[in-house]
Amino acid sequence: MTETDRGSNLAINGERLWDSLMRMAEIGALPGGGCRRLGLTPEDSAGRALLVGWARENGYGVARDRIGNLFIRRPGTRPELAPVMMGSHLDTVVTGGRFDGVLGVLGGLEVLRTLDDAGIATERTLELVVWTNEEGARFAPGNAGAFAFAGKYTLEQALAHADADGTRIGDALEALHELGLEPVGGRPIEACFELHVEQGPYLERAGIPVGIVTGTYTVRYFNLTIAGEASHLAQPLTDRRDALVGMAEAILAIRRVGAAHGEQGRSNASWVKVFPNVRGTVAETVQMSCDVRHADPEVARAMAADLHASIEDASRRTGIAMTLDPFHQFGPVHFDAGLVDLLRRTARSRGHRCQDILTVAGHDAIALAPIAPTAMIFVPSAAGLSHNEREYTDPAACAAGTDVLLHAVLAKAGRD
Amino acid sequence: MTETDRGSNLAINGERLWDSLMRMAEIGALPGGGCRRLGLTPEDSAGRALLVGWARENGYGVARDRIGNLFIRRPGTRPELAPVMMGSHLDTVVTGGRFDGVLGVLGGLEVLRTLDDAGIATERTLELVVWTNEEGARFAPGNAGAFAFAGKYTLEQALAHADADGTRIGDALEALHELGLEPVGGRPIEACFELHVEQGPYLERAGIPVGIVTGTYTVRYFNLTIAGEASHLAQPLTDRRDALVGMAEAILAIRRVGAAHGEQGRSNASWVKVFPNVRGTVAETVQMSCDVRHADPEVARAMAADLHASIEDASRRTGIAMTLDPFHQFGPVHFDAGLVDLLRRTARSRGHRCQDILTVAGHDAIALAPIAPTAMIFVPSAAGLSHNEREYTDPAACAAGTDVLLHAVLAKAGRD
Repeated sequence: MTETDRGSNLAINGERLWDSLMRMAEIGALPGGGCRRLGLTPEDSAGRALLVGWARENGYGVARDRIGNLFIRRPGTRPELAPVMMGSHLDTVVTGGRFDGVLGVLGGLEVLRTLDDAGIATERTLELVVWTNEEGARFAPGNAGAFAFAGKYTLEQALAHADADGTRIGDALEALHELGLEPVGGRPIEACFELHVEQGPYLERAGIPVGIVTGTYTVRYFNLTIAGEASHLAQPLTDRRDALVGMAEAILAIRRVGAAHGEQGRSNASWVKVFPNVRGTVAETVQMSCDVRHADPEVARAMAADLHASIEDASRRTGIAMTLDPFHQFGPVHFDAGLVDLLRRTARSRGHRCQDILTVAGHDAIALAPIAPTAMIFVPSAAGLSHNEREYTDPAACAAGTDVLLHAVLAKAGRD
Repeated sequence: MTETDRGSNLAINGERLWDSLMRMAEIGALPGGGCRRLGLTPEDSAGRALLVGWARENGYGVARDRIGNLFIRRPGTRPELAPVMMGSHLDTVVTGGRFDGVLGVLGGLEVLRTLDDAGIATERTLELVVWTNEEGARFAPGNAGAFAFAGKYTLEQALAHADADGTRIGDALEALHELGLEPVGGRPIEACFELHVEQGPYLERAGIPVGIVTGTYTVRYFNLTIAGEASHLAQPLTDRRDALVGMAEAILAIRRVGAAHGEQGRSNASWVKVFPNVRGTVAETVQMSCDVRHADPEVARAMAADLHASIEDASRRTGIAMTLDPFHQFGPVHFDAGLVDLLRRTARSRGHRCQDILTVAGHDAIALAPIAPTAMIFVPSAAGLSHNEREYTDPAACAAGTDVLLHAVLAKAGRD
């Protein structure tokens, strides 16, 4: 019997999984069918509380670490062995959907429940993790919990990330009683899996229910500062240095960089801050966020160079000073070859059609990859839509991804 | 002796005027030399209190009406006659200077003080008015006090104008004790003068210290709504409807409308609101303000039509829905021919070189023009800069404009 054949008569309960997803979606529900549970808000904490309640019902251990990462533990028979982890996030963006992050968490819960139902013990402890502030919609940048766990940020740095009002992550965690006592990271992990929706259109277009994520795009974020001159709208156009005109030229220049690099090219501006931003005054300054992404790291590097040149050109054409500074970045990350292969074999042996795919988006798994063998499973997003209230993955695909997660986890955790 | 020759040996005190301007500039002072006294904030109220203190020192009457317009009154010998008014504003924009509005108010104060010094009584009462919320930087649109006085808004409408946090003008006036008991408008005014900085470059370029404002540009403000689709930055560029890209195309289209109509063409976007405006999510919607202006009403009408066509074209090219709705508008206004001629004759007889000019900007005088004979005096703005901390008009020009104001007011008020 091969590793992946073990437990092959075991199946998750797709209806229970869907019901959990829909119940979680009631917290922070939006009129258009989506959810808003920004990281470290009362809604986020309420989502965690719902999960903790379910965990307690099944007798799992519950713990938090000092950056608020939440651990649901189903102990193994050999607790001295490093655990097998499944994790994602419950926080959302402003225009969040019901599946992004949530599927990875509640899929993990379904794995634990399925093992309970079947009376299966594992040698290794299973840990289901809710990583703190994945989205970064309130506290930028995102992935604070996973990056702190992986040692990319010190605990002090992560706690000090502040929102637009100056509230620190540490303050928000304390106010919500989400701050725990466990040290952050620094312990061995046997394997780490993240099930997630694709957030792009490729699996749906191919009609494939399961994506085996082999690695990431290369992603470079920048902060762009545009320094014009405030003036009255009475000022002749030729005498103005209108920061909004500079911003418009920059946004189109940024867009052209991605468009010039084919289907895999991505580039855009997503966040802008205009000063003074009132009717009647020509804008003085704009700060904005932009990024470039590509599957090929060499092309991504060329795109970053193109971006610099395009912004310089826009600055020259408009006579408005523009400064481009590197911000957050990730990739290329290659997920653990052994785990990737295990996921492929598991999907096939379980009868799910699958294909390899790269992730264009950032994920907690990317933060974890340097410190533990890590891999991801994708399921399709309808029309590729995510960070949108209409985000949708059908019940069958949710179940298929969770089924692959179950059997891969079991293979790594060892049936007792 | 002609009307304008009377009192020609009378001169304002330019040093005292400059000193008042600089003292007012200490309230809400900004590091770059400018001022921020947004309408109906504590800073705005502190500016008014400084003026009221000066008025009390000289024994002038002080009153407020029910929209908070502040009246400093120097009684005439024939109080049954309609008063002569001088007025402007003390509130500023976010990036305000020291002269915009303030010169018209403190120039008016200097007129009153000069008459006191010379022991000159007038037949008509002189009223120096500080109009409420001229700029509209906090409560849009602007000119709430003057438009309410002139009956364009009912008192209830003006009091209900709200800021971005939902605070109403009425609430702010009450909180600041700036709400008065006098009825708003509805009484005869013999003449209304506003001295103001040009806020454009024409007088400075011509080397002329005094502009006689004969009327206004035609100005049309619009609200533009851009409806894209929120998605993850992982979404391929060709599958997105990025509201920020739509906004960028719209901003450049708006700019082109003004640029296509010569030196007198003005058009721009000044205020934008992006949703959800976070790193990591393609923008869903943008609301923005834009306007077109021209000296010739026919051309302004053509520009508005061009704007509609350009926005439709941008919408078609980007596949993003855009809706353009009329907002605030003014002009063409022609100031009172008799007063304009009086100002011209006064400037010449007082030895100030002057030229006719149109105002591109909105002013309280524009609101007053339909209900009283009204005219404006402009003085140069260095480099045409206004709504900018570096806004500057030199002491000699401030004094020249105030000198014209003094003698025109005296001519209309009648030396007793």
